[in-house]
Parts: sequence; structure tokens; C-alpha cells
Amino acid sequence: MDTEERVGAFRAYLKRIDHYNSAVALLHWDKRTYIPRKGVDARSEALGMLASEAHRLTVSDEMKGFLEDLLPLSADLDPITARALEQRKKDFDRSVKIPVERHEEFMVLTSKAEAVWEEARAQSDFSLFAPYLSRIVDMMREFADYWGYERHPYDALLDPYEPGMTVAILDPLFGDFRVRTTELLRRIEAAAPIDSAFLHRRFDPHKQRRFSEYILREMGYDLEAGRLDETAHPFETTIAFGDVRVTTRFVSDFLNSAVFGTIHEGGHALYEQNIADDLRGTLLHRGISMGIHESQSRFWENIVGRSSEFWERYFAPLQEIFPDELGDVDAQRFYRAVNVVGPSHIRVEADELTYNLHIMIRYEIEKGLLQGDIQVRELPGLWREKMREYLGIEPENDTVGVLQDVHWSGGDFGYFPSYALGNMYAAQFTRALERDQPAWREAVRSGRLAEPKEWFVTHVHRHGSMLDPADVLRAATGEELSSSALMEYLTTKYTALYAL
Amino acid sequence: MDTEERVGAFRAYLKRIDHYNSAVALLHWDKRTYIPRKGVDARSEALGMLASEAHRLTVSDEMKGFLEDLLPLSADLDPITARALEQRKKDFDRSVKIPVERHEEFMVLTSKAEAVWEEARAQSDFSLFAPYLSRIVDMMREFADYWGYERHPYDALLDPYEPGMTVAILDPLFGDFRVRTTELLRRIEAAAPIDSAFLHRRFDPHKQRRFSEYILREMGYDLEAGRLDETAHPFETTIAFGDVRVTTRFVSDFLNSAVFGTIHEGGHALYEQNIADDLRGTLLHRGISMGIHESQSRFWENIVGRSSEFWERYFAPLQEIFPDELGDVDAQRFYRAVNVVGPSHIRVEADELTYNLHIMIRYEIEKGLLQGDIQVRELPGLWREKMREYLGIEPENDTVGVLQDVHWSGGDFGYFPSYALGNMYAAQFTRALERDQPAWREAVRSGRLAEPKEWFVTHVHRHGSMLDPADVLRAATGEELSSSALMEYLTTKYTALYAL
Repeated sequence: MDTEERVGAFRAYLKRIDHYNSAVALLHWDKRTYIPRKGVDARSEALGMLASEAHRLTVSDEMKGFLEDLLPLSADLDPITARALEQRKKDFDRSVKIPVERHEEFMVLTSKAEAVWEEARAQSDFSLFAPYLSRIVDMMREFADYWGYERHPYDALLDPYEPGMTVAILDPLFGDFRVRTTELLRRIEAAAPIDSAFLHRRFDPHKQRRFSEYILREMGYDLEAGRLDETAHPFETTIAFGDVRVTTRFVSDFLNSAVFGTIHEGGHALYEQNIADDLRGTLLHRGISMGIHESQSRFWENIVGRSSEFWERYFAPLQEIFPDELGDVDAQRFYRAVNVVGPSHIRVEADELTYNLHIMIRYEIEKGLLQGDIQVRELPGLWREKMREYLGIEPENDTVGVLQDVHWSGGDFGYFPSYALGNMYAAQFTRALERDQPAWREAVRSGRLAEPKEWFVTHVHRHGSMLDPADVLRAATGEELSSSALMEYLTTKYTALYAL
Repeated sequence: MDTEERVGAFRAYLKRIDHYNSAVALLHWDKRTYIPRKGVDARSEALGMLASEAHRLTVSDEMKGFLEDLLPLSADLDPITARALEQRKKDFDRSVKIPVERHEEFMVLTSKAEAVWEEARAQSDFSLFAPYLSRIVDMMREFADYWGYERHPYDALLDPYEPGMTVAILDPLFGDFRVRTTELLRRIEAAAPIDSAFLHRRFDPHKQRRFSEYILREMGYDLEAGRLDETAHPFETTIAFGDVRVTTRFVSDFLNSAVFGTIHEGGHALYEQNIADDLRGTLLHRGISMGIHESQSRFWENIVGRSSEFWERYFAPLQEIFPDELGDVDAQRFYRAVNVVGPSHIRVEADELTYNLHIMIRYEIEKGLLQGDIQVRELPGLWREKMREYLGIEPENDTVGVLQDVHWSGGDFGYFPSYALGNMYAAQFTRALERDQPAWREAVRSGRLAEPKEWFVTHVHRHGSMLDPADVLRAATGEELSSSALMEYLTTKYTALYAL
């Protein structure tokens, strides 16, 4: 077989994996939106089977053959095939380093652990979950050794979520940022509070849906290549090329939930909808990392969605949908209310500023567990201590403390930092956007959201997985990762808002 | 490996196929309900790939190994495993008889033919479709030879839809029935017409949905193990154990469409929801044949849903939902209106009596094409001739004539008879129900629909695919297939309704 045929076979093989991934995504989407209660067990089984079939294809002898035959020829191949080979090789090596039986043990363990975590959280009893978490941490350390790392075992866990990310990068980045955030928070706490009580009036879910769909369209989300549905824990999912779905949640006594949840997921969706067509079916037709993905959702949710320019334009249509509920509110008051800052216990409900502090706590704990500096049994105490130190409050029980997140029960160590990185990337991208389009905030004020959107299409979206995160950032901004843009943005914003 | 282990491996293998089928069913359901327009192409590709993966598992060397090892031991195995082996063997033999390259040619041909048929139907130009249909008929004849048959090539095509069905059974059954139906139709046409114009008033789709859901619940359809959605061409689909979905269509100026469409699909769904649990994951957890399946939908749609007892009970709730639209109508008038009989061109819109005549036309044409007595080019003329002879009307073009059904373009020869068989089975089951529960119609009048439903659960549903159609019929009724029950039912019904 000549090279061209071999490349064709490789591309066809990737397409097959892509179709499996598509099926898994749809089964999962349906499980979280429309599935009838009694169908859940069978669905979980089918999902497990299909996901492992898809995984099997990525580590098969056939894949190995493609990599052995074609990787040495990479320099002469088209750049998309070359990148696809590189990405498959990375994934292949990572997968085969874990002995099959250890991987299976891990799957069984985390599947049980998730159920135990739910029970522990419901009872607010960390001791139920602790033995499982200990075993998970042991396996994470074992896996880190299998995967290998240069300086810190946690590096091996960060890489799959954020290629190239290490403790050596994060420690100074997060350390400095945490201190300055805490200082800013103290100043805000000393300022006059902002009223946001009206956000908790009763808002008809049907009307909320209308506004959600409207705002998605305004953002440039293509509803012919996606849809909006309801779910308990909102998410964005790419089913396939031309099918990128958003979900949201309509809470009748809290308007922010759907408004900002929809904008957030819409930001993820814009990324996935605008990847270059020629990456279709290569497994490169996806966002490159969790951090870059989160930068897109956070840009729209916070930098655009929580800006005064945005509400100068979009408060009127919102008020038109809720004339009684928001009749006594104006754009400026609304803008201030959706930007209220204050320490709270639950990460997913935190404001734009304190959110990052919640991440710092998780980062420090994960790093310490991996290094062996922290023991699982110490977590509840450590959690309270760090909450007190960074946020100035202490959870009254573990349900709203150390047990609040699902991630650890699933073995998803290394994921949390992406959320804060997303905020930092977003601020850096915004600084570059401002450089390239100084009037972009005016565009937002006039409802020309296509202007900032197109900047992101050009500089971020279209690349899909062709470039690593640091390369996307460098190409778009000319900068390396830093927290300065985010800190500057937050300081400017809250100084004005709270008249600091 | 001992027998027990081998059986365990076989059962696990079936479960894997079952999960593939489940994924295919969900991808298909979504394609017909919620998919965004731009996702359709990728979905079609994914469906094609997954369906052939599922098929590959049924004809693999692994399957062959199971059959070779375990079939000889069938007599000593549990009856479910033994039946599963028997069914897999039948399917395996059938599949391997067609050379792989011929099967692929067939898939390509029918995929093109379906698009050409759509175009031909839109243009009402049979000559566009004719060359494709000719090639499909040639391949059907070739396949019939590969599969083998004792007396008539059409027998080989009937069997997959209705195991055991042959031309030798159908010819006398349908011939006699056709003549008597035509006679009855002539008498009805001579009687005073029934007014049904009010069924074409404007009925709010949201209210139609409310009645559809209500009536499904009344029938005993478990909405926690299924759901109701909208689609263009309604269908029932089994996604998995505990997930049996119904779709319907709300036509704002024709109430019958959703009411009887929902009841029809609900009948299919009751069958699938009530198969014995221990058949789960064996591929036997499905209705046994198209004909038996159709008997369940037709029993509910026509024998129950178009009975006077049903509307004595359910007209009031319907009227409550449509107080303005149906304020001047009563139960008796409604009952009469939904039973109007008259010749029409489109099979899927035909009434309970003339529907079967539409089937007879298709049966005679398919049989003749397979035998070589009829040539494709003769079809438009033959169609008009048979329509005139049986129904007394002639289509003004091929769009509403020979081009109306999708079946032939997909190579689905042998399917049509199932619809008429369904009506015959349904009438025979009803006669047995009447024997076992003489007061069942009183139960319907009182809204105790669980009484007839439970009879079907016991005598039909629970068997799943454990018994062949003739065995289900014999066990439930003590009878062989015959048209007498249906003819008797129709004659009695219309004699009273039209005062013949």
C-alpha cells in the first residue's frame, strides 16, 4: 500500500472513532435531558460499552500500525494528518502505559466511589467517602508514575486537561493571583453593598427560555447546527459536525441561573461551531483544552455578559419579556446586581472574583495529595482552614464544604485548574481583542456581538486542536500565560463598581 | 471452557449487540425528532457505521463459534438461551448466504434509489424511478434465490417480516377477503353518508398533546419507561429495556391524526413495554413479527379506539379539552365520524375497511414482480387498474398512486402484507378476548382499559420473541390464521353504523 492509501485508511479509521464518539455524546446528552427514569440503567450499560469500544479503537494494533507506518513520514504529510498522528500518538502512549487490569480496577473503583460520594454528601459524612478517596489518590499517584513526569507527579495529571501545564507554571501564577484577589475581596467587603434582591423574584421559566434563545442567537450561535434544552446540571456537548448542543436550567426564583448559564454554555458552543471544516472527522475538530474552552465560556459569561455595555443593549429586551418583574429596575442597576461579589461556600454559585479562590483551594489540595504532603483524612479540617483564610468564611458542614464537587469521586484530578486558567486566558484574549479592535465594547453596546465573536473565530476557534494552548495564546496575543490581564480587568471593574 | 461459561459468554455477546442496537435506535429517534438540520449528514454516516458494526457482530466468526458449540446442546440448555441460539442461527444463515459484495451493492443501490424515489414522487414521474426499481427487483429475485424457498420466490421475502408466512397461505386468505371487502364497500357507498366535517376544525396542537398524553396513560403506557414526542412520520421505537418511545403528529386541522396516531403507536409500545423481564438483553426482548406487532397497534387504534364504548367513556374528556371546537358534538356523533368509510388514494390515510384493499394491491404487485409475471414498466397502468377494480377510483397522477410508498425504494419487499395480517390477527385475538372476558367491552366503556391490556400482556406481550407468530396466535386463540374474525367484525360494525 502506498503512503496516500495508508493515509486514507488512517483518516477513515479516525472517522470511525469519531462516529463512536458521536454516539456516546448523543446517548449521554439524552441521558441528561430526555431519558425516561426506567431507561437509565440500560443507558449506563450501553454508554459504558460504547465508550470502551471507542477507547479500544484508539489503542488497537491497527492504530499502532498506523502510527508506526505514518509518524516517520509526518514531515512530508499534510499538516492536518501530521497533527492527527501526533495527537493519536500522545493518546496511545498514555493509554498503553496503564496496565489493562489497573485501568479496569480504576473504572470499577470510581464507579463505586461516585455512588458513595453521593451518599456521603447527602449525609454530610466525609468518613464514608474517605476510604474510597484514599484509594483513588493512591491510584492517581500510581498512574502519575506510569505516565511519567519531570518534576511533580501532579504534572502528569494536569497535561491531559491542559497540555503542557505544570506545577512549576501554576505555583507562582496562582500564588500571586490568590494574594491579590484576597486583598481585592477585603476592599470590596468594606465597601457599600449592592442590592440584588430583585434577581430572586419569580421569573416564569417559559419566558426565561425565550430570553435564553434570543441571547444565543444574538451571540451568533447557529440554532440550525444546535439546540437548547433543559437539564439539571447544564453543559455544552458536541454531538457531531453541525450538531453542537447547549443545555440550561430555568430556576424560577433566580434569574441569573439561566441567563448566565446559557451565555456560558453558548460560549463553549461558539468555539465548537466555528472550528475549521477541514478538521472534520479527524478528532481535531474539538477545542484543544479545558482551559481554552473555559476561556470562551468565561469571556461570554463574564467579560461580555457581565459588562455594563452588554446590559445597556440587552436590558431592554429582557425587561420587555419581564415587564412586571423588572419594571422598577434599569440597565445600570441590573448590571450592578449581576456583579455582586461576596464569599460563599459553593464553587458553582460563586461570583466572578471569588470563584478563582475556590479553585486555588482545590489546586493546593490536589497537589498536596499527589505529592503526599496532605493525607485524605486531613481534608475536612484543611478545607475549613483554607476557606477561612482565603474567603473569610467556614462551611458549617462537609456537604457545602469538601464534599461539594463530584470530580474527585470520578478520579478527575487535574481538572480544577482549568477553570481559573480559563479566566486568565479570557482576560489575555480580551486585551488582544482590545488591541486589534479598540471599539469592541462599543460594538457590544450596539448589539454587534459578531465583531468580538469573529475575532475569536479567527484567533481561537478555527484552530480546533491544531495548536496547543500556549501556541493558541501566543498566536492570538503574542503573550505567555499570565494573571496580569485578569487581575487588571478585575481591579478596574470592581474599583468602579464598588467605588473603591 | 465448560458449557455454563460458554453460555455466559454467548449471553454477554448478545448483550453487546443489544447495546449497539440501542445506540442505533436512539440516533435514529433523535434524527426524526430533535436533530438540528445541519447535523443530519453526519448523523446518517454515524448511523450507517454503527448499524453495520451491529450487523458484523451477528455474522462474525465469534457468533459462528457460539452457534457451532452451543446449538448441538440446545436440548439441555435453558429455553431462553436455546431460543436465542435458534434465532441467531436463522439470522446468521440468512446473512451469510448473500455474498458480501452483493449486499454492499444492494445498500448503495437502495440508498441512491431512495433519493431518486423522492425526486420522482415530487415530479410525479415514474420513469425516473423505474430503472432503479427494476434493479432492486432483480436483486430481490437474486436474494430470494440465495435465501431459498420451497414454492414461491416471494416466500423468501415474507419470512423475515412474518416468520412462516408464504404465498400459499396468503393467496386464498387475501383473495377471499378482498372480494368480501369490496362487496361490503359497495354496500356502504350506497348508504347515507356520515358527517365528519367537524374533525377538520382548528384544534390547538398543545391541547392535542394533552389529550394524547392522557390517553396513553389511560391505555396503561408507562410514561416513566417511555416518552411522547412530535415527528413528521410517527413511529414507536424501543431504545432499550425501560425506554420505549412513542411519537405522534399534531395536525391543527385534522383531529384524527394525533388521536388515532397516538393510540396506534401506543399499542405498539404496550407490546414492547410488557415483554417478560427475563428476555432482557437476549435480542428476544422484542415483538416477534411485523404482523403481530401491527395487531397490537390496530387492536388499540381500531377495535378499541374506534369503538362506541371507547368514545362513550373518552369523548367527555376530549370535549373538556376542546369545549368550543366540540361543543356541538356528542359521543355518538363523534364515534360515527371517526368511522367514516370511503375509497381514497393514500394508504396511510385510508379508513379501517379500505386500508386492507390498498395492501392487496401491493401484495399482488410484489408477488408478480418476484415471480416475473409483472414488469416494472407496467406498474403505473396496473396500479390504476387495480385501484379502479378494488376501490372504484383512479389516481390522477403517480404521486398519489404507485409512487406514494417509500418501501420499494429501500428494498423492503414482503413488508406490506404485515399490515393486513395485523388486522386479521387483531380480530382473532379480540374474539379470544371476548371468549375469556365476555364483559371486556363494558370494561372499555368504564375506562378499565387495563382489563383488555392485561389479557394481551398474558397472551401476547410477555412472549416477546420466544414464540413464532403462528404459535402466539394458536396459544392465545386456539386458532390458525384466518380472515373470518376480521370480516365478521367489519361486517357487524358497518352494518350497524351505516344501517345496511
